[in-house]
Amino acid sequence: IEVVKGRRTFRWTGQYEIDMNKRKTTRLELNVFKDFNPVLNEGNCKARFIFLGNIDPDLQHKVLDQVESPEFIAADTIECYLENKPDRFRELLKRIQLLFMNDSEARLFTGKHNILSAAKVLLDYGPEYVIIKKGEHGSILISRDDIFIVPAYPINNVVDPTGAGDGYAGGTMGYIAKVNSWDFKTMKKAVVYGGIVASFLVEDFSLGNLKDLKLEVIEERMAYFRHVTSY
Amino acid sequence: IEVVKGRRTFRWTGQYEIDMNKRKTTRLELNVFKDFNPVLNEGNCKARFIFLGNIDPDLQHKVLDQVESPEFIAADTIECYLENKPDRFRELLKRIQLLFMNDSEARLFTGKHNILSAAKVLLDYGPEYVIIKKGEHGSILISRDDIFIVPAYPINNVVDPTGAGDGYAGGTMGYIAKVNSWDFKTMKKAVVYGGIVASFLVEDFSLGNLKDLKLEVIEERMAYFRHVTSY
Repeated sequence: IEVVKGRRTFRWTGQYEIDMNKRKTTRLELNVFKDFNPVLNEGNCKARFIFLGNIDPDLQHKVLDQVESPEFIAADTIECYLENKPDRFRELLKRIQLLFMNDSEARLFTGKHNILSAAKVLLDYGPEYVIIKKGEHGSILISRDDIFIVPAYPINNVVDPTGAGDGYAGGTMGYIAKVNSWDFKTMKKAVVYGGIVASFLVEDFSLGNLKDLKLEVIEERMAYFRHVTSY
Repeated sequence: IEVVKGRRTFRWTGQYEIDMNKRKTTRLELNVFKDFNPVLNEGNCKARFIFLGNIDPDLQHKVLDQVESPEFIAADTIECYLENKPDRFRELLKRIQLLFMNDSEARLFTGKHNILSAAKVLLDYGPEYVIIKKGEHGSILISRDDIFIVPAYPINNVVDPTGAGDGYAGGTMGYIAKVNSWDFKTMKKAVVYGGIVASFLVEDFSLGNLKDLKLEVIEERMAYFRHVTSY
């Protein structure tokens, strides 16, 4: 999958800087995913917490079919599948508790520019929670009767946003699995942890920053984040 | 001044919706501001808290020259003056404590895409505080040694964002003047109130929603905002 992130933008001062918050797909090549047929091992079939990354909804269904008794299922998606397989994606929404989605994709898929309106349309398809990700602008967690709005962790130097969404989902799911609960109060903290894990990810290429990441370093950022968001 | 707000955007579903978070200036006509020579009355000359709206920096200086002993001075600006009178604007920055600026204008003026970097450049010109406004994505308050990040109040139906920046500044300045303090802790709450006043403003045309606005209704939104932002 080849995706070009960022757009070169000219500024008055003559400097060039890349807008890391915008993605533009110039070409899509599935490569190893072209004939991918996911077969889960025994341990994974017994997983209680499932996160379906943003691949073809047919594959997401195929993974889910193999899990014996999942308790909390989350999924992410990406533009091309919303465009090419909207019905399979809608069917997936009936099977999951939590949907992660970028703001631009939520707008495209629902036709609603207002993020809260878009999230409500998505909730109507089935999931208990929708998380709208807005990159550097943070995210919004929406359930049928509550919302939570949180800014992004402030980053001085974004090196590469590739995989930020997966890091965000990983941090969120990790907290849910650890606490073994998904009431709204837990979900709020989970979302904050997701944002903090993503903040480490974008400061380096690939998984560079996550390889040796310790919980105490995450908690340090959590404390700083509380400081810069409390009033 | 004629400014076209919003861009018509086409969505897959066939719906048209306006992106209220983007402004595009198609033509600028100064009209009554063309030969405007601001002369303050005696009361205003004695004002302690000054907010200079986004007019020509020459006029902002002219207003400031008439104020006898201002204690806290804030200013806003707009793209065309940054482009046409950058030096006069830079001189203004030396005379004020607080600068309000849109994210796009901060990026254009400083050549920094990263908002924190842009704010630091602006602080270097003189003000004690910079508030970067990001419309529906909230705002960031920055001083030399602290930051505060706050989302925007969630709005289901934005009717007209014209004047949102002035409403935001009005709410912020109102709180500062009422509390008669501008330490960082006060500034954080001031910024939250600014966002809440702006939220009323964008729900109607012109000052429709502000005319009969009561403090208790503002406090209701404050309580709800605390609910949707706490974790």
